[in-house]
Amino acid sequence: MMGKLNWLGLAAASLSAVSAQYYQRLGTCPTLGCVLPPDQQDFLPGQYFDLRLEVHAPVNGSEAFNEGVPDEEFFVTITKEGGEARSITEFFSVEEPEVETWSFKWYEDLYAADAGTASVVNVASKIYRRLALYEPGNYQVTLNYYDGETTTANWVVRPLATKKKAKNVILFIGDGMTTNMITAARLLGHKSINGKYQSVLQVDDFPVIGHQMTHSIDSFITDSANSASALYSGHKSTVNAMGVYADSSPDLFDDPKVETIVELLKRVWGSSWGAVSTAFIADATPIALTAHTRSRYAYGPLVDQALKSLSNYTWTDHGGPDVYFGGGAEQFLPGSGSYQGKDYYQEFADAGYLISLNKTSLESLSNDSKALGIFCKSNLPVWLDRNVFTDNLQNFTNDPTGAEAPATDLPGLKEMTLKAIDILHTRGGDKGFFLMSEAASIDKQMHTLDYDRALGDLLELDDTIRATVSHLKALGELENTLIVVTSDHGHGFDVFGGVDTKYLSEQKTGREKRKAVGVYQNSGLSQYTVEHPGISYNTGPNFPVNWDPRYQVAAGFGANPDHRENYRTNPDNPRTPATNITGFESDDYFVNPTDNVDGFIVNGTLPTNEAQGVHSLTDVAVFAMGPCQDTFGGVYGNIDVFYKMANCLGLGRPDGKAGGNLTRTSR
Amino acid sequence: MMGKLNWLGLAAASLSAVSAQYYQRLGTCPTLGCVLPPDQQDFLPGQYFDLRLEVHAPVNGSEAFNEGVPDEEFFVTITKEGGEARSITEFFSVEEPEVETWSFKWYEDLYAADAGTASVVNVASKIYRRLALYEPGNYQVTLNYYDGETTTANWVVRPLATKKKAKNVILFIGDGMTTNMITAARLLGHKSINGKYQSVLQVDDFPVIGHQMTHSIDSFITDSANSASALYSGHKSTVNAMGVYADSSPDLFDDPKVETIVELLKRVWGSSWGAVSTAFIADATPIALTAHTRSRYAYGPLVDQALKSLSNYTWTDHGGPDVYFGGGAEQFLPGSGSYQGKDYYQEFADAGYLISLNKTSLESLSNDSKALGIFCKSNLPVWLDRNVFTDNLQNFTNDPTGAEAPATDLPGLKEMTLKAIDILHTRGGDKGFFLMSEAASIDKQMHTLDYDRALGDLLELDDTIRATVSHLKALGELENTLIVVTSDHGHGFDVFGGVDTKYLSEQKTGREKRKAVGVYQNSGLSQYTVEHPGISYNTGPNFPVNWDPRYQVAAGFGANPDHRENYRTNPDNPRTPATNITGFESDDYFVNPTDNVDGFIVNGTLPTNEAQGVHSLTDVAVFAMGPCQDTFGGVYGNIDVFYKMANCLGLGRPDGKAGGNLTRTSR
Repeated sequence: MMGKLNWLGLAAASLSAVSAQYYQRLGTCPTLGCVLPPDQQDFLPGQYFDLRLEVHAPVNGSEAFNEGVPDEEFFVTITKEGGEARSITEFFSVEEPEVETWSFKWYEDLYAADAGTASVVNVASKIYRRLALYEPGNYQVTLNYYDGETTTANWVVRPLATKKKAKNVILFIGDGMTTNMITAARLLGHKSINGKYQSVLQVDDFPVIGHQMTHSIDSFITDSANSASALYSGHKSTVNAMGVYADSSPDLFDDPKVETIVELLKRVWGSSWGAVSTAFIADATPIALTAHTRSRYAYGPLVDQALKSLSNYTWTDHGGPDVYFGGGAEQFLPGSGSYQGKDYYQEFADAGYLISLNKTSLESLSNDSKALGIFCKSNLPVWLDRNVFTDNLQNFTNDPTGAEAPATDLPGLKEMTLKAIDILHTRGGDKGFFLMSEAASIDKQMHTLDYDRALGDLLELDDTIRATVSHLKALGELENTLIVVTSDHGHGFDVFGGVDTKYLSEQKTGREKRKAVGVYQNSGLSQYTVEHPGISYNTGPNFPVNWDPRYQVAAGFGANPDHRENYRTNPDNPRTPATNITGFESDDYFVNPTDNVDGFIVNGTLPTNEAQGVHSLTDVAVFAMGPCQDTFGGVYGNIDVFYKMANCLGLGRPDGKAGGNLTRTSR
Repeated sequence: MMGKLNWLGLAAASLSAVSAQYYQRLGTCPTLGCVLPPDQQDFLPGQYFDLRLEVHAPVNGSEAFNEGVPDEEFFVTITKEGGEARSITEFFSVEEPEVETWSFKWYEDLYAADAGTASVVNVASKIYRRLALYEPGNYQVTLNYYDGETTTANWVVRPLATKKKAKNVILFIGDGMTTNMITAARLLGHKSINGKYQSVLQVDDFPVIGHQMTHSIDSFITDSANSASALYSGHKSTVNAMGVYADSSPDLFDDPKVETIVELLKRVWGSSWGAVSTAFIADATPIALTAHTRSRYAYGPLVDQALKSLSNYTWTDHGGPDVYFGGGAEQFLPGSGSYQGKDYYQEFADAGYLISLNKTSLESLSNDSKALGIFCKSNLPVWLDRNVFTDNLQNFTNDPTGAEAPATDLPGLKEMTLKAIDILHTRGGDKGFFLMSEAASIDKQMHTLDYDRALGDLLELDDTIRATVSHLKALGELENTLIVVTSDHGHGFDVFGGVDTKYLSEQKTGREKRKAVGVYQNSGLSQYTVEHPGISYNTGPNFPVNWDPRYQVAAGFGANPDHRENYRTNPDNPRTPATNITGFESDDYFVNPTDNVDGFIVNGTLPTNEAQGVHSLTDVAVFAMGPCQDTFGGVYGNIDVFYKMANCLGLGRPDGKAGGNLTRTSR
C-alpha cells in the first residue's frame, strides 16, 4: 500500500492543473490518476476499444507527489447504471495485464521551457485490450489509487440503429474548408448579375446543413489527424493522434485504440471501402481510416497498417482498402520512406491489387479488382497548376516510379473519385461501399497563405461532387447513397474587399499600396468570371475564366507569419511567405523578400517560429443529401458525424453479431 | 429623335463597364440605359414598388457619348411571359410622369481619383410610383433609348402562399455575426470536459440551419443598411441604401422604393410589429424596417418615417411600431439630431405612445399601449460594461433626457425583448406580431477589434433567445411562433490559438511577445469558464466566470488597420486601435500608442484612412425553429429570408386583397 496521501501535493496538483495550459501534463488527465478513454466519452454498441489506466507520480515541479513513486497497486472497476461495480477482468472476461512503467518529461509553462526546467513524471500503467460494450446506457469506470483517491470516467454507449438504411456512404472532406472559403470560391467561379447568381456550387444545392464543432479532446484548436479520427470513430483525441487516446508512454503504437468506421463496416456488413485524396496517401485524413497511433508522422508503418491491419495486437482485420488513390510514392518506393524499406507497390501487388501510376492507366483499370493508384511523390500538384499554370508542373521532381522527373499525366480529384466509385460499386455489390474523398490542398495552400490555390482546389472539390451526383444517378445509385460533405477544421480566412492590383503594384510605399483596397461598395464585383481577351483555360463552367484580373479579392487571415501581401494570384507555386534566411536560428522566420515583391509588409501575429498560417476554431459546415439526410441538421460535434453515418449504416451491434448473414470476415 | 448611334461610344461603355470596378457609374446599370428595379430581381405578388428609368449621357471620360445629351424620348414597355409588350401607363393604369434631369460625377478608377479627374454624366429620367404585380410569373421590362438601344430587366414574381402559417415571427439579428464568432462565444461561455460541452448555446439547439449569401446588389461586400433591406423586403440594394434601389439623382429620398415586411404585414393582416435594438434606434438595422432612402445617415427624417410613414409620396401606412426600444436619444431630443429640430418624445407621445427612458419604467409599462423606449444617447453600452466593467458606464454622457450625465438603470437586450413580446402579444391579439430584435454591438465592437466585447454581446443575444423561448412557452405561444436567428453580414474574425498573456506582457520585443501564442495542441482549454478565487460577476450560467484569465484566446482578423495586439480583454471601452494624431491628414491612421501598450504592433491590410476593421464576404448562418422551419434549410440569398418569412406569414397577395376580413388600414 501507499504511504498516506500527500494532501498538499494533490491540492497543488489541482491548482496547477488549472493554470497549466499552454502545455499540459496529459490533457485528458488533470488529476494523477488517468482513465483512457476518459470521462465524457461516447461509444457505439459493440465497438472495440482498449482501456488504459495510468497513475502519475511527478518527481519535481508544482505537482511533485509521493517522491515520484507511482502506486502500482491501483485497481479499476466498471459499473453499468443500476448495476454493481465489477472488475474489468470479470466484466469483460479478459486476463489481468502486467503493470508497465515508464517516465516522461514536460514543461509546466513557457517560463519553464525558456529555463529548460522540465518536470519529470514516473508512471505505472495497465492496458486491457479489445473490449466492447454491447448494451446502450450509462457506465462508470472508476480508478482507485493512492489509498483512497479516485478518478471516475462517465461513458455513454449510445443506442443506435442496427438496420442499414443507406447502401453506400460517400464522405467528402474539404481539408481546412470553412463556409467563408465556400463563399469566396463561389465568388470566383460563378457569375452573378445584380446580386443574383446565375449558377451556384453543387454544395449550395444540398438540402440539409449542419454545423460541427471541431475541437480536439484537450485543446480547442485541432489538427487534421485527431479531427479525422473523430469523424471516423466517434472518439476525439489529442493533436497528432489517430484511432487512439493518447497515453504518456514513449511507444507510438501502444496507446489505447478505438475501432474506426471501415473496421466496423467490414466486420459487420462486409462492405467495400476506399479512400481517395489529393494528399500523399499516408497523410492524416486518408490514413486515419485505419491508423492507430500517437503520431501521424509514422508514415511507413501506417501504410502497412492500411494494407494489413494491425500486426502488433489482436484487432479487427479491415481487409485492406478496395480502392486507394492519392500521392505519396515515398511510402511505396523501397527506401527510407517505406516500412522496413520494403517495396510497397510489390506488397500491394502481392495482396492482389492492380497498381496504377498515372491517369491513363487509372482510367483503364478493371472495376473487378482491388486497386492502388499512386500518382506522384508527396501531395498531388494543385488544381491551379494542373489546369492553368501548367508550367509549374515541371518544377516538381515527383514521378511516382522514383525517376528524377516531374510526374505527368496526373489525374484530378474528379477522375480518382469517379473511378473509385466504379470499382467500389462493382466489388461492393449488394453490400454497398464507403468512400472517403479528400480535397487536401485547400488546407495546405491556406497554410502558405496562397488562398487562390486553396480556392481552386475547393472548386475542384465542388466539381467532383457535381460529377459524383451525376455519376451515381447514371448508375442508379443516387437514392441509395448518403453523401456528406464536410471539413475537419478551419483556417481564419475571409475576403474583405476588392483590390486594384495594378494601382497597388505601382505605388511606392506600403501605406500607399494599401489604398488600392476597396471595402464595402468599393469592393465591386467579381472579375474572375468576366471573359478577358486572350485568356482561355478550357476549364469549363463553374471555374474562373480569368485567374489574374486587374481587380482581385482582398483577403486574409487573422493568424499570420510575417509576409508581404499584393493580393494577386501567385504564378509560381509553392508560395513561401516567410523564410529563415537569417540563419541565426533555424526557426526564426521573417518576411520572404522574394515573395510578392511589389506588395506591402504585414508583420505576423503568430510565434516567429511559425512559417505558415495555422488552424482556427470555427465550427464547420456539414452538407448532407440522401438516406438519413435530415439527421444532419443542427449543431453538433465532429464525433456526431461518425454516429450519424454509423446509424445510417446500421453499425450498432448490441448483440455482438455481424449484420445479416455475415460471419466474421477473415483475409 | 437622337442622332445616329455612336457605336464606338457604346463599345467603350461596355469595355469600361468591365474595367470600372473600384468605383462604378451606377452599379446596377452597366449600359447607358437603366431600369430600376434592374434585371434579375424577384418580387412578392402584390408588393408595392416604384419603377425608375434613367438614360445616361457621359460628358467626358472613357464612356463619353452623344456630347453629353441624354435621350429624353425614351420609352419603356412591360411584357408578361406569353403576353404582349404594353406601356407602363397602360399596364399599371397610371399617369405618365414628367421627365426629370440632373447631373452627377464619379471617378473611373483610383488614378482618376488621385488626379481629381471626374467623369460627368447628364441624366434624363422618369419614375412611376406605387406599382404592383399581382400574378406570379416572369416579366420583362424593356427600356428603349438612343434610337434602337435597349436595356431589358427580367423579373420574377414568385408564387407564394396566401395562408398565414405562423401567428408570430421573431427575427433575431446578430449584427456582423458569423459562425466563427458563435463558436468563440460558446468557448468563452460554456464549460467542456474532455471535448464534450456540458452546456451549449441556445442557437445550438435550433433544429434547422441554413446559410444565406449577404452580398449587395452591386458589390460583394455589403453594409448593414442594404443587407437589412434585403432581409426585410426581398430586394437587395446598394451600400448605404434602404428600402429603395439607388438611383443617380442627388435627392436622398426620391429613389424607387420597395415595400417592406412590416408595411406588408400591416396592410395585409393588421398585425402588430416592433423593433428592439442595442443600437441607436435610427441605426440601419432597426430603421430599415420602415426606411426608404439612398442614405442611412439621414437619421432625423428616418425616425419621422418610422413613426408617420412617408409624407412625400403615397405609400403604405405602416401605422407606426407598437414597440420601439433602443438607444439614440439624439433623434428624439429637440435639436440638431431630430427631424426639423422637433421634440420626438413629444411627437410619439402625441401619437399615443407611452414613453420610457430607463429599465425601471420599461418593466412597469402597461402591455396595452404602444411604447417608445429610448434608454440613452447613441448606442447602448455593451453587455460587458453593463455587467462586468461597470465603472466604464460613468465615462459616457448619454442620459436620454439630455442631461450631461451617464445613463443609469439601463435595460439589456433581454429585458427589452421580453417586454416587447408582452406588449406585441397583447396588442396583436389573434393577428399576432412581427418583432425584430438586434444585438447591434457584435458588429460595432468587431469594427474596433474589441472582440471580447463583441462576444459578450453575442452571449447576451443567445441569453435573450433562451429567455424568449422560455417566455413564449409560458405564454403558450411557442408553437405559434417562427423564430429565426441570423446576421446581416460578417467580419473576418476567428480564434487561432491560446495565449499566455502574462508571458506576452513581460517580453521586451514584438517577436518575443508573439512566442506566447500557443497553436494546435498548445491552444489548451478555455480558462474563461474556470472559477478564479476572488472573481465573481453574478452574470449567471452561460457566461464566462472570468473575463481576464492568464490564458486567453488568440484571435484576429484578416482586415486590419495598424494596431497593437496583446490578446487581453480591454478593461476600458471603447477601444481605439488606430489614431490620426499625426494631424498631417485627418484620415491618416497609425497605431494608437496608448492602446494595448504592452502588446506588439501589427500593421494593417486596409487603406490607411480606415481606422477600424471592415465587413467580410462570408455566407452567414440562419437558425430556424417553429412553423415553416424546414423551409430555412440549405443555401440561399439574404432576399430569400424575406420570402421564407413572407411565405410563412401568407403575405403574397395575387388578388390584391388584404388577408382574412381585413379592410385597408388607416391611422
